[in-house]
This record gives sequence, C-alpha cells and structure tokens, in this order.
Amino acid sequence: MATTLITGGLVVGATGSAKMDVLIDGGTIAAVLAPGSTVLGHDLAASVDVVIDASGKYVVPGGVDAHTHMEMPFGGTFASDTFETGTTAAAWGGTTTIVDFVVQYPDQRPLEQYQVWQDKAAGNCAIDYGFHQILSDVQDDSLKAMDELIAEGVTSFKLFMAYKGVFLSDDGQILRAFQKGSENGALMMMHAENGAMIDVLVQQAVSAGNTSPYYHGLTRPWQAEEEATHRAIMIADLTGAPLYVVHVSAKQAVAQIAAARDRGLNVFGETCPQYLYLSLEEQLGAPGFEGAKWVCSTPLRSRAEGHQSHMWQSLRTNDIQMVSTDHCPFCMKDQKEMGIGDFSKIPNGIGSVEHRMDLMYQGVVSGEITLERWVEITSTTPARMFGLYGRKGVIQPGADADVVIYDPKGHTSIGLGKTHHMNMDYSAWEGFEIDGHVDTVLSRGSVIVDDGAFLGRAGHGQYVKRGLSQYLS
Amino acid sequence: MATTLITGGLVVGATGSAKMDVLIDGGTIAAVLAPGSTVLGHDLAASVDVVIDASGKYVVPGGVDAHTHMEMPFGGTFASDTFETGTTAAAWGGTTTIVDFVVQYPDQRPLEQYQVWQDKAAGNCAIDYGFHQILSDVQDDSLKAMDELIAEGVTSFKLFMAYKGVFLSDDGQILRAFQKGSENGALMMMHAENGAMIDVLVQQAVSAGNTSPYYHGLTRPWQAEEEATHRAIMIADLTGAPLYVVHVSAKQAVAQIAAARDRGLNVFGETCPQYLYLSLEEQLGAPGFEGAKWVCSTPLRSRAEGHQSHMWQSLRTNDIQMVSTDHCPFCMKDQKEMGIGDFSKIPNGIGSVEHRMDLMYQGVVSGEITLERWVEITSTTPARMFGLYGRKGVIQPGADADVVIYDPKGHTSIGLGKTHHMNMDYSAWEGFEIDGHVDTVLSRGSVIVDDGAFLGRAGHGQYVKRGLSQYLS
Amino acid sequence: MATTLITGGLVVGATGSAKMDVLIDGGTIAAVLAPGSTVLGHDLAASVDVVIDASGKYVVPGGVDAHTHMEMPFGGTFASDTFETGTTAAAWGGTTTIVDFVVQYPDQRPLEQYQVWQDKAAGNCAIDYGFHQILSDVQDDSLKAMDELIAEGVTSFKLFMAYKGVFLSDDGQILRAFQKGSENGALMMMHAENGAMIDVLVQQAVSAGNTSPYYHGLTRPWQAEEEATHRAIMIADLTGAPLYVVHVSAKQAVAQIAAARDRGLNVFGETCPQYLYLSLEEQLGAPGFEGAKWVCSTPLRSRAEGHQSHMWQSLRTNDIQMVSTDHCPFCMKDQKEMGIGDFSKIPNGIGSVEHRMDLMYQGVVSGEITLERWVEITSTTPARMFGLYGRKGVIQPGADADVVIYDPKGHTSIGLGKTHHMNMDYSAWEGFEIDGHVDTVLSRGSVIVDDGAFLGRAGHGQYVKRGLSQYLS
Amino acid sequence: MATTLITGGLVVGATGSAKMDVLIDGGTIAAVLAPGSTVLGHDLAASVDVVIDASGKYVVPGGVDAHTHMEMPFGGTFASDTFETGTTAAAWGGTTTIVDFVVQYPDQRPLEQYQVWQDKAAGNCAIDYGFHQILSDVQDDSLKAMDELIAEGVTSFKLFMAYKGVFLSDDGQILRAFQKGSENGALMMMHAENGAMIDVLVQQAVSAGNTSPYYHGLTRPWQAEEEATHRAIMIADLTGAPLYVVHVSAKQAVAQIAAARDRGLNVFGETCPQYLYLSLEEQLGAPGFEGAKWVCSTPLRSRAEGHQSHMWQSLRTNDIQMVSTDHCPFCMKDQKEMGIGDFSKIPNGIGSVEHRMDLMYQGVVSGEITLERWVEITSTTPARMFGLYGRKGVIQPGADADVVIYDPKGHTSIGLGKTHHMNMDYSAWEGFEIDGHVDTVLSRGSVIVDDGAFLGRAGHGQYVKRGLSQYLS
Repeated sequence: MATTLITGGLVVGATGSAKMDVLIDGGTIAAVLAPGSTVLGHDLAASVDVVIDASGKYVVPGGVDAHTHMEMPFGGTFASDTFETGTTAAAWGGTTTIVDFVVQYPDQRPLEQYQVWQDKAAGNCAIDYGFHQILSDVQDDSLKAMDELIAEGVTSFKLFMAYKGVFLSDDGQILRAFQKGSENGALMMMHAENGAMIDVLVQQAVSAGNTSPYYHGLTRPWQAEEEATHRAIMIADLTGAPLYVVHVSAKQAVAQIAAARDRGLNVFGETCPQYLYLSLEEQLGAPGFEGAKWVCSTPLRSRAEGHQSHMWQSLRTNDIQMVSTDHCPFCMKDQKEMGIGDFSKIPNGIGSVEHRMDLMYQGVVSGEITLERWVEITSTTPARMFGLYGRKGVIQPGADADVVIYDPKGHTSIGLGKTHHMNMDYSAWEGFEIDGHVDTVLSRGSVIVDDGAFLGRAGHGQYVKRGLSQYLS
Repeated sequence: MATTLITGGLVVGATGSAKMDVLIDGGTIAAVLAPGSTVLGHDLAASVDVVIDASGKYVVPGGVDAHTHMEMPFGGTFASDTFETGTTAAAWGGTTTIVDFVVQYPDQRPLEQYQVWQDKAAGNCAIDYGFHQILSDVQDDSLKAMDELIAEGVTSFKLFMAYKGVFLSDDGQILRAFQKGSENGALMMMHAENGAMIDVLVQQAVSAGNTSPYYHGLTRPWQAEEEATHRAIMIADLTGAPLYVVHVSAKQAVAQIAAARDRGLNVFGETCPQYLYLSLEEQLGAPGFEGAKWVCSTPLRSRAEGHQSHMWQSLRTNDIQMVSTDHCPFCMKDQKEMGIGDFSKIPNGIGSVEHRMDLMYQGVVSGEITLERWVEITSTTPARMFGLYGRKGVIQPGADADVVIYDPKGHTSIGLGKTHHMNMDYSAWEGFEIDGHVDTVLSRGSVIVDDGAFLGRAGHGQYVKRGLSQYLS
Repeated sequence: MATTLITGGLVVGATGSAKMDVLIDGGTIAAVLAPGSTVLGHDLAASVDVVIDASGKYVVPGGVDAHTHMEMPFGGTFASDTFETGTTAAAWGGTTTIVDFVVQYPDQRPLEQYQVWQDKAAGNCAIDYGFHQILSDVQDDSLKAMDELIAEGVTSFKLFMAYKGVFLSDDGQILRAFQKGSENGALMMMHAENGAMIDVLVQQAVSAGNTSPYYHGLTRPWQAEEEATHRAIMIADLTGAPLYVVHVSAKQAVAQIAAARDRGLNVFGETCPQYLYLSLEEQLGAPGFEGAKWVCSTPLRSRAEGHQSHMWQSLRTNDIQMVSTDHCPFCMKDQKEMGIGDFSKIPNGIGSVEHRMDLMYQGVVSGEITLERWVEITSTTPARMFGLYGRKGVIQPGADADVVIYDPKGHTSIGLGKTHHMNMDYSAWEGFEIDGHVDTVLSRGSVIVDDGAFLGRAGHGQYVKRGLSQYLS
Repeated sequence: MATTLITGGLVVGATGSAKMDVLIDGGTIAAVLAPGSTVLGHDLAASVDVVIDASGKYVVPGGVDAHTHMEMPFGGTFASDTFETGTTAAAWGGTTTIVDFVVQYPDQRPLEQYQVWQDKAAGNCAIDYGFHQILSDVQDDSLKAMDELIAEGVTSFKLFMAYKGVFLSDDGQILRAFQKGSENGALMMMHAENGAMIDVLVQQAVSAGNTSPYYHGLTRPWQAEEEATHRAIMIADLTGAPLYVVHVSAKQAVAQIAAARDRGLNVFGETCPQYLYLSLEEQLGAPGFEGAKWVCSTPLRSRAEGHQSHMWQSLRTNDIQMVSTDHCPFCMKDQKEMGIGDFSKIPNGIGSVEHRMDLMYQGVVSGEITLERWVEITSTTPARMFGLYGRKGVIQPGADADVVIYDPKGHTSIGLGKTHHMNMDYSAWEGFEIDGHVDTVLSRGSVIVDDGAFLGRAGHGQYVKRGLSQYLS
C-alpha cells in the first residue's frame, strides 16, 4: 500500500497543538515526527509515495459523528440519505466515521435487525461506520441481545422515554436494561423526553387548531426534557450504569447532567449544532410551513430563554462532552409536507452530517471554544466515548489514518448549490458562512476528498467493531 | 548528541494509551512510532545509540510538580531541601520539572527577588525548573513587575489571604492584582484561607493552653478555607482573571470551585497527596508532638467529614484539575521542634516531591482514577496550566525528552532507609507501600535515574521560561 | 348552648405564645381575652357555664391530621380502624379534625365514591372530618368530577405514580389533572414513587428469595422517591398547579422540594412521625417477620444515610411544611400476616393518628422544633393548606372551639395496655415515652376528652366543607 | 384610660384573616371578639368610650420598621429627620414602632453612645422606639458592652464589612463579636459589602473622571455584596451566632442566604422598598446629578439583571423575611450636593419611613404578595425577629394597642405637596400611587393619625426594651 507524508501542518489534539509531520503507511499512521521529514538522517519525504503539504493548515483527526440515522424508517417514510449519500456527504465535511443506529421496533428481534442494518450498510459507505442499537419495548430477549451485540462491536444501546408504541420503554424496562448495562459495561443512551406529557400537549394543540410547525416546539417544553433527563440519571444512579443523553437541547437538562457529574456519576451529554445555532423563535417560528425544515426532537429551544448560549458554555465547561448531528434528513417535498395542517405528522429530523466539523470550527472563530476543544468534541471524545479511541479520534502511530487537513484561511458557504451533498431538497443551514475549509480528507490512508473533489467511493468504508466506552471514570 | 529508542512500552497520555515506540534525538523527542522500530524499512533500533526496552511497562511524560518551596525562608528558618537535594529527590520519583516559588516579602522588590531565586537555583538543579512569583502586600510596583516577569517566563502569581504582615494582601490589593492578570493573561494563584479568622482562633487556642499540633487543624476550620475560596472566586468573576486555588483540602472549597466552573469561569483547583491520604484525626492527632510532622496549611482535614474521599472524587470529576505537592520540608529536629508548646510556631510544610508520582499511581491501583487520568493530573494538566505544554507534559515529537518508564509490576516502599532522598529527618509517608516503581527517568534525553541509581547531576536542570496558561477556556 | 372559659393557660400559635383566656360560646370561640377573665369590668368566669383552669398548661388549637385512611379497602382487606374507632383514637391524642381519602379505583366513578365515603363516615365520627379524593387512572370524567367535588368541599386530589392497575395514573393523565387543578385552584396531592421501577425491584427480590419485610425498604430506594418527586414538580411547573407531596421520607426528595420552593413554585411537602423517628435498620430490619409492623410506603429510610435528622431539619427550615400520619392501620393477625413469605403482600400502613400531637411535642422537648412550630406543623398549616383555616387551626374568635389543653409537666407512655385506642393488635410506637400529656380536648365547644376519660361520641363529628388552599403564595 | 372598640373590620394576621372586633382598654388590647360587639350578652359598643367603625377595611398591627437612622451623623452631616420629624412621618404611614441605630464610632465607647441616643430620642418620638447598636472596630470593651446592652433591651448589634476607618471591623473582629452573640443570644446584623474591593473601584472611577451618581452603583457591584454575605454566613456557621443581613439588594446575595437557610442556619435577610421598586438604570442613571437622590448602600441594582423581580420572589419564598426602610434621609440642598463632581461624597441614604406600609401594600394589589404576607413582612416578623412580639406585631390580648386601619378602597399619592411629612426637600418616591390608604393609626390605644390629621405628639413614643429574637429555629 501507499505511503504518505503530511508535512508542515499544525497537528491539533485535545490537549494541545504542535507542528508535526505525519507519516502514513497504508491504512494506518506509522509515525508522528518533528517537523523536517527526516528521521535519524533518513529523508522520509523522498521515500514516500505522496507528500501533502499542510503548511499553514490544521491537521486534525477525522471527525467522528456518533449520531446518524441513514435510511431510517420512521412514520411511513425513510430518512432521505442512504448510507451512500449520507457517508459521502459526511466525507465532504471532514467526518470519517459515523456511528449509526440499528432500529429495532417492538415486534422485531434485536439481532435480526442488527443484521438488516449490516446488510444495508455493507458495500455502500464512503467512510467507516459502526452501530449503536436502538432497543424498543425492552424484553428478556433484548437483554440477552445486549451481550451478544457487544461481541459484535455494538456496545451502546439507545432507549426512549417517548414515542409510545413505537420506541418507548417504560421505567421498569429501562431499569432492567440499565442493570444489564451495569453488568456488561454497555453505555446506555437515552432519548430523554417525557413522551406521555408531550402526547397530551400535542393532542391538545392539534385539537385547538394550533397545527403549525411552531407548535412542535411549544408542545415539547423544556420541562419534558429536564424531567426525563433527571429520571434517566436516577436510574443510572440506582443501577450503576453509565448514561449518555442524546441531543440535549435545554439548559435545564444540562443542569441535571452537570449536577450528576459533580457528584461523580458517569453521566454524559451530547448536543448538536442545531441547538447551538438555531432557535424556536427564528427557525421553528418561520412563516407558514417553513418551520418544518427544523422540526426535530428534542426541539429547537427559545433564544430568549438563553438555551443556545448556555449550550456553548456547557461545551466549554465539559458539562456537555461532545457534538453529534442526529443527522436524520427528510425532504420538504413528500416528506416534511406530510405534516401540513398537523405538525405532529412532520417527520422529525435535520440533516447536518456534512457540516458538523465546519459549524463547530466556526465556534473557534467566534471565540466560543478553543481550537483543541474543537477537535476534542468532534473527534477525540466521540471516539473515546464509544470505544473507538486508538483507531479513531487521534493522530498517533497505530491509529487509522483518518486525517483532515483544515484550512483556517479558507471559506465555506453552506447551502443548496453551494456546499451541499446530502440527499435533501433544502438545507437546514442555508446561508451559513464558515471562516475555514475542509481541504483534504483521508480515510485509512486514502485521500477521499481533495481540493473540492470527491475521490472516494461507496464501499471504501468498513464496519468498525467498537469496544466499551473509554471515557468512564 | 545521543539518540535513544524506547521500545515496547505502553505510552500513556491524558486521552488514551497505546503501544508505541519513542525516538529521542538529543534532548527532544524526534518521533513516536508504531511498535516495531522501523520507519519505511529503516530499522531504527539498529541506528540509535541506546535502546531501552520498556516492554510491559508504562512510558509516561515526566512529572510536573507545579508547587514546591525549595530553601524557602519562613519563620526564621529555611525549608530543608536545597534546590539540589529537592530536585534530586524529585528525579528519583519521576518528576522532571518543578515550578518553585520566588518569595517577595512586603519590604522587598519583586524583580530583585526573582533574580535572587534565579541565582539560588542556577547550577544546582537536577531537573528543569520554572518559577511562580509570590506577591506580598501588592503595591503599584508589584503590578508593574507582573508585566516584566511575564517576559521572563514567570506567568503566574501567588497571593495570600492569610499571614498578616508576612504575605497577606487585602481584598483591594488582590482586586488590583487580578485586574492586572485579566489584562496580561497571568494566572492568579491563591492561598485561600481567611487569615483574620484563623489568627483569632489560634490566639484563643494558645491562650487556652491548647498548644498541641492537633489544634493547628482545629484553628484552621473548613469555613476559613471555603470562605476565602469563594471570595477569591468573586474577585475573579469581577475582574475576569483566571484563578488557580492552591492546596485545596476542604470539600466545601471544592464545591465553590465546582460551582464557579459550572457557570463557565476559568477557576481551577490543585490538591496535594496529603489531602487525599492523610487526615486530621490520624496524623495531626498523633500522640504528643508527633503530629507536627504533618503541620501544613491548609491543614489535613477530618476523615469523619469525608474530605479525603470527596477529594478523590473531585479528581475524577475534574472539579480539581491536578495534583502538586506543596513540597516544603522541615526537619523535626530544630525546625518542627520550634513549636513544642505552641503549635503556631511549628514551621508549616510537608515534604512529598519525591513521592507524588508513586502516591498518585497508587490511586490507579486502588481504582480511584484511571491510568490516563494519572498522567493527566501529574503531568499533562500541570504543563498546560502553567504554559509548559508542548515542551513538557506530553510524549510527542518536538517535546523535551522528559520520560518516565514506570513498572506496574514493581514495588516501592516509602520511608527513611527505604525510598527517601529528601533532606528531612523523617518521612511524612513512612510506611506507605506502592504497587509500582519508577524504573527509568530521562530528562531532556539524558537518563538521570535508572535501575535504582541516580545518574544525573546538579546543574543538568535548566530554567524554563513559561508561556501563559494553555488551559483556559 | 353552653359557655366555657379557659383561663390561665399559655395560648400557643404559629407566630408566638401569650397568656390569654379563651371564651367559648356554643361551638365557637367567642373571644380571646387578656388574662383575668374580665372584660370592661364584667367577670366572665362568673357568667360562664364551665371554667377550665389551664394554668401552667398550653392551650393549643386542636390537631388537624390531613392524611388518614379509615376503613380503607386495599389488597383484599380493610384498614382496621373504622371511622368510629379511628376518630375516637384521634380525639384521645388531641386531634380534632381529620381529612380522610375517598378512594376511587379505575372502574369506579369519582362522585359515586365520594358519596360512599360520606355514607361510611356519617354518624360515626367522634371529631370533624373532611375528604380528599383519590383519582385513579384519570379520565375525562375524573376531570369533570374535580369541579363538582370542589363545590362539595373536596378541594384536594391525590394521584399516584405507583401501584399500576390500582391507583396509577401515567404522566399524561397527571398532566391533565394538574391542568385542571391550575384552572380550578385544587391542590394536587401526589404519592411520589416510581412504581414501574419499584415493581421490577420487588419482582426481582421475591424471585431471588428475598422475602422478608426488610426488602420492602430495599426495593423502594430513595431514587424512586426522588425521581417521582422531581417529575411531579416538573408537571406542576409546566401547568402552574400547586403540588403537595404526601409522606416525604427521603432527604433527596426534600432537596427537590426545597429547590422548587426556592424558585417560587407552590410546592409543598408533608412528612409523618415514622419518617422522623423510625428507620430501615431498626424497625424494618427487625428479626423475623416483626418488621411487617412498619411496612408502609414510602418506606422507612436508612438512619445511616441521615434521612431522619434531615427531615427534622426540613421541618425547621419549612422545606417540609407539616406533619400528618398517613394513618392506615392493619393488624398483624390475618392482615400483616398475609405477607409472610412475600413482603409484597404485606398490607402497607402504620397507625399513628392517636400519637401525632404527642410525638411531635416530643420534638419540642428534644429541641428539634420550637413550641410555636409544633402548633404550626400539626394544626395551623394543615388547616391553611387544606382550606380549613379560620374554622380550624387557630384559636381566634369565630373559629370552631377545637381546643387542646396540653400539660408539659404530664407524661404519656405509648403502647398496648398503656395509651392505645386504635383498632390494632400492636402499636408501631410501643415503648415511646412522651414528656407531656393531652389533658383536655374540646371539639366545637364540647369536652370530648378529659382527665383520661373519653366523653365524646360517635356522631358528634361533622363533615367540614373545605375551601381552596390558603397557603399559596 | 380610655376604652376603644374597633368593629366590623377584617383583622389581618400573618397566618390568616378574619372579621373580628378589637377591644382596647388603655394602652393595650383587652380582647379580640367575634363580630357583633357583644360578649355573653354584654354590649361592649355601648360600654366603651370610642367606637371605630372599620367596616370594609383592614385592621392590622402597626408597622414595625426595624431599620432607621434618625439624625444619624455621617460624613460631616446628619440625616435630615430628627427623631421627632422621622417618627411623626412614620406614624402618618402606619408605622408605630421603629428600631433605630445607636452609632458607635471607633473612638467612642458603646455604652456612652447608647446613652447619647437615649437622650436624643427621649421626649421627641411620636411612636415607640427601640435601639440596635452599631459596633465599629470591635474591641474587648465592645464585647463586654454587648452583654450590658442586652440588659438594656438592645439585643441586636450591627457590624460592617465596609467603610474602613469609620465602621469597618475586620473578619477577626467580626468573628469575636459573633462568638459573643452565640453565647448571649444577640442577633448579629451585618452590612455585607466588601469595602476593600469597593474602595479600589471607587478610587479608580473617580480617578478616571467617572464621577456621576451612576458610578455609585457601578462601583458597588453585586459581587461585593454576594461575597460579603457569604463571608458573614461562614462566620455565623463557624460560631453558631444568628445572622441578619441588612438591606439585601442583589439576587446573588439572596441565593447565599437561601442556601444557608436550606441547610438549617439561623440566617435572615431584610430588604427595603427601594430594592423592590427602583433600579440602577432608571433612578441612579437619571440625568445629571438627579441620581444622587437614590444614592444609598447597598446600591440600587440593575433591572436588566432581574434583581427587583427576584427580590419580590424572595419575599414570597421567605428567603427574605421582612422589609425595613433603612430610612436615612438627606436633602439635596447642602447634603446630597456635597457629592457634585464626586459621587463618593454624596451622603448615602433614602427616606422611606413614611411609605413602607403603603409601598408594600401595593405589592398586594399587584399580586406580588398576599394580604397576610404584607402584615407578616412589615409587622409580625420584624417584631419576632427583634424580640418585640407579643407587645408589637400582632393584634392579640395583652399586646400594645398599636393598630392601623387600612382602607383598600382609599388612595395615596406620594410626593412633595402630596403625602410627604419627612424632613426632606425631595421624595425618593415622587409620583408613586398607592391603591390603599392609612385611615387611622393607634399607638398604645391613642389615635395618633385619623382622617388625614396628625393627632399625636412628640413624647408620646416610649422606649421599648427588646428581648432576644423570637424568630430562631
């Protein structure tokens, strides 16, 4: 296989940055070197197949997006990105690993579903991928499957406190799953919203004729998220299982996570770019049916209440540990439109897998986070959290050569006809401007994006068996 | 200069561990390599001067002890370790950098004192060293000196809320120094105890005939530490200066720091091995005058109140970010004995510079912290906190080759006649057993400790100009 | 009707105490007078039918026990006190009003049940009584019934987060009931334990052969109470309904209530004597089946964890506002014994209606609470909380002449064959000694207990229509 | 002496309200009666000298203003109200008792000063009065004086954390005074602002030419108040003394008090009408020198930061227990004007003694507090807090007949030429409109204000020896 040397760049890691050269041999990083490309007199630049000049640029570990839903079946339709289109778009944006969700509905068997998802992804991905498993309506065989799936490299399991009849497990079921997680080391992921409360509010709103997308936000109030977050924490406390709360959007939910962490629990929270940048008032409250573009759950929160600025703070304080996308795209036409006249029928989801690295980098530019924190929340911690670290999430000998060369002097305009490769007929991020640019992306040593061209292919991406979380204290 | 290759070890860093080889060229790390010692076909092991086999061992960045007081003049005597004896003992224990304190008393000029300390240390240190500056009774020229000292690589300044007439600055003086720190980026360090309260309690205890060392603890209650910690945080909040609280010992003080951090302030706390392992009841309360061995300030806290276990938890939750020693040794004879019949005359201080890495490693063995967290709190974070990272605190190309090879199958018995190279006539840690061992220590590429032999020399250590803190969010 | 003058006593109220005489005319208090029994020269003592000399004694408003379950049907049996035996025992102990619970099970209509309870109580009570209504499995007609019952003087409604299939309402049902409460001013009472979690733990314990009464406590951990308490608060926050949490036993639940109150919510908590005095270790953990005597829900908590002392503190800080008994007596024989071999079949409940005033007075003796706070938490606040104040809970002209003359120099020994008039074959309080004594009890002007004799009668007690809570801020 | 009967009114107390008649015999309340004016057939209305018809009105205990500074010497001038003018104005506004502050400066003896103040007040007051004692620069004789003054009925002592050289005691001095308070039961009052911080900020502002009144607010930031409040609480915690924080204005200071109370400490806080209604932006920030009218310390706080609404909430939650005025009036001419060109020379103080009852009643009208809470925070709790309850703060037999008849259908316009009897050339409350009116005021049975006429006289008011606080738990 080919050898590659990346020279002259600033290698950015979670704890610091330094000018270093990176030597890639085949699919893995062979060495990290002091600048100059020589080792004990050997001129490596002269020996390798490819030299990439990264002078003036950042060399960072490829992004790990730990929350995507490619082709997800939901509400009679499917998320509009296939594994091919979605992972290709991810690659464009500097993300080289996704962890997608196997869906098991109540009448399905977990392991069979796992196989279905393996089949869906096999041969179609442009980048590496792993799986979490959704467990709906937890039963004895779900608990048994947890052990078996860990052996398959699926070490994290998502439960839901909402979506009755679809995903919901009751608190007794959750308790049992958490007990199992406490035994086998699985990381328990939670969609933390009180579905029973929300279902009443939604029904009341629709009955009252309050059917526009804005009411999606009003009928999922922060109390429903705060409540469920606290409840999940109590179950984690009781069982000893580690807990990872997905798509945290309310500052009050953050406060619950922070309090749990302060008393030493292994409780973690993920947020998403939409909760950092977008709001109830501006997006969900857009005129007419426009707000449907941003219908996702948990919902966008009120800027007047300060959720967005608090969420940035939480990234600084490590009360929130990482940023995923919850990528779950639907087109407006035929999909989002299903909810005209009834917001509750709008498929829930926003597409962001392509833009996460850029959007978070803009937080560096605006002073919200440091350069090192950018790498930590988009790559290093996701890798550690989900048992990928060592292979992913770090530029270090032995690791997969998943590397992004990011140009802080570049620029990226987001939007249809600009930067947009996801299979959607709109962009949730239309008009966002980024003061940086993904120049080059390597996946296991292969250049898959370079200079505005996609050089990868469906099928390059491989399944990654994950270990247990490496982030527990 | 010589080239060295460390092979076969597990290189441990703050975010993870991996088997990697480390190539040292002269004083710095030239490369980090995948195991196997070859780069593009070049067999490095055959090319280097020295190969160190670290198989089965941990390869960690040399310890950074950011709080020592060598030869410190206090209360009519001097801390018993010279820069030579103290840094040699540090080397024995795997610490390759100290940051010591320049002392400026009220009638002295800060810059002159800085020069005095440079002269004291020059040519005498076995390992690298930097300086913080103590500012007593802050005046206009103290503020001016802060700017000048930053240019000299002294980027952190310690103030005191206790020791009236000796070190104390009042809250107005502290406010002014913090304003300056907010401007020039200096890290403000604080001895956070309410001296005015303590002075009354001490005077009352002595008057009442309560003169044994135990009363040293009782007259410095947690309220005095919690109060001062909160006060310092408020001044940091008002001015925007970053704050680093030294030798945190009370759980209530930790709670104040945690609360400040939760709301996004750059507030940090250091603890010391004595606050993790030793207690008011067992050590300070030892019979007769024995407790004098452990008279230090802040004092050892009550185990019944749970401070020690909470402090370990704080290391896990990152509410406390790092561990220093506050190494300030005094002999029992002639020094501690000055306080027979009056605990307030006992020189304050414990000697631990030699044992910090071992004592904290024992926390890994006992399950209190992870292996990675051990490296983070003893080396990586101290380096980041005090502007040394990149040179110190990490095993990475370009960094100083300060490396410790630690054997988890080794054993270390602490005590006089066992492991003890500090210039003290007793050990505060007598009888402690460590399930690990510092096998080899390199300082800038030179092996200074190996296989139970000290191979270094006074004068090898160099002054390190520090940059501003790299730990701010 | 008769006139009565109580002279020479110290009248104790919630905000203070003073020597005053009390003139009763028929069933109500006609006047409160400065000591001396004369008004503008009229010698009242000479004019009244009865003079009661209360010199050296406390004159306090009759106790209001806002949480009793007389003859309650549960688990195939009935609470062993009838309205007659239970209210007679209450009278013996200085309680002159109870608020009992109408039970509506899922297949029953609320208003019909209300009528059943009116019929059960009518003509049988020795003291006045009101009703709360239990709503199980809330439906549209439950909400409608709330309005109708308020008109009947039933202004508080109890929901359950536990007891699936029996009492449980899900969070959506609770939300709807709270919305109704927010509209019509009803006080929402909550049994706050997470039943789904508990059911799993109970099933697991029984399956594992852990069947003794002690496991009743272990399978209802504080997390289940803390969680449910927080959840109820969130629903109260969302809807604006006032919330009253019954039988709070865990210090963590208190913390949730305190936090809600600190941010201005109308959230209240009641505790019971058992949570102040008894414990998991001592009572539930008694040898053999003995612990069954103290099986109640929420369960007795661990003394090692400090719940009892924290609960006393909460009474001082007003984080807990009042003390009821949750009187729900079962005999050991035939009733508690149903759970031999399976703790989950033990009828839940403890009988205390007779002893509440004495047990809480002992808290005055031991210094836990002040004399005024005793009256406040046993009479004044219960009356205010449940819309009885003015008639009950205070010694003031126009109020019902429900008066207790309490002798601080008296003594009361509790236990079978000592002081015990409840219809139980054991006393949960056997051996408790009280440094005070209920000397005389008047209910609406009639002396019903005096000098160790019961002078009242079944049927004296009348139904009291209650108004809305007078405790809201 | 005369007898008076107040009929037909709604007597409002801290725990509830009821229609009752009040019989006054001489200076004290002889009886409280059910409506109808007859007792056992005696028609009292026919027997008394005076009948006051209070139908449709509130009958409330006379206001107790526990924080006034009549004729206070400060900064080279004197507060503009004498004991005569100030107490007369108080009477107009329904306040029948003040507790004023004896001032002891560092070079003065506490007991001598106490006598000076007794002499100043004697024969000049229109209403009853008590004294707190200010202790500056606490010394041994201050501690001794505390015991002696308690015997004189001065049971509360105010210390300062600000005003160096004038009032300031350092933390050691405060500690010693609190130790004494813990012994003898005195209530320790605290002016909680960090003077050392403020002095620097003031000096910097003035040096920078920022001399307008607005900078008075900016140089006394909430951090200075929060810090000092916390510090005082720690000293109270350490010593066990009860603590009463005067003029709390910052929401963060409230949070400290709330936290202390939640953990069971006897810590209390008073706020003042200005902190509920007025703000930094609107009043202190008024054009030109106008803001000087509202220069007081602690300063008015920012409305944008939400202090005012939080302070109202704190009154509802009882995190703040009562409302005093900190009445310390200065005229603009010759007094406030001393600070033209240098805000730090503006005498600190606002005059409100006349308007407190009205301003707080307006909080009832606007729904901020209940009617009962109005009485509690203006009369009952101040009386309990400062050892006056039983004589003051309640309408009850044996109490002084200090009664206010308040007309909720009346109206009061505040301002010069409208309602204003304080000796000031401006009103801090100009333009405030109150939806209620003080109709009649009785002081110890004498009508001193009625129907817009002042019927009292200087010299009617008597010194009240106070007992220890009756509010401790």
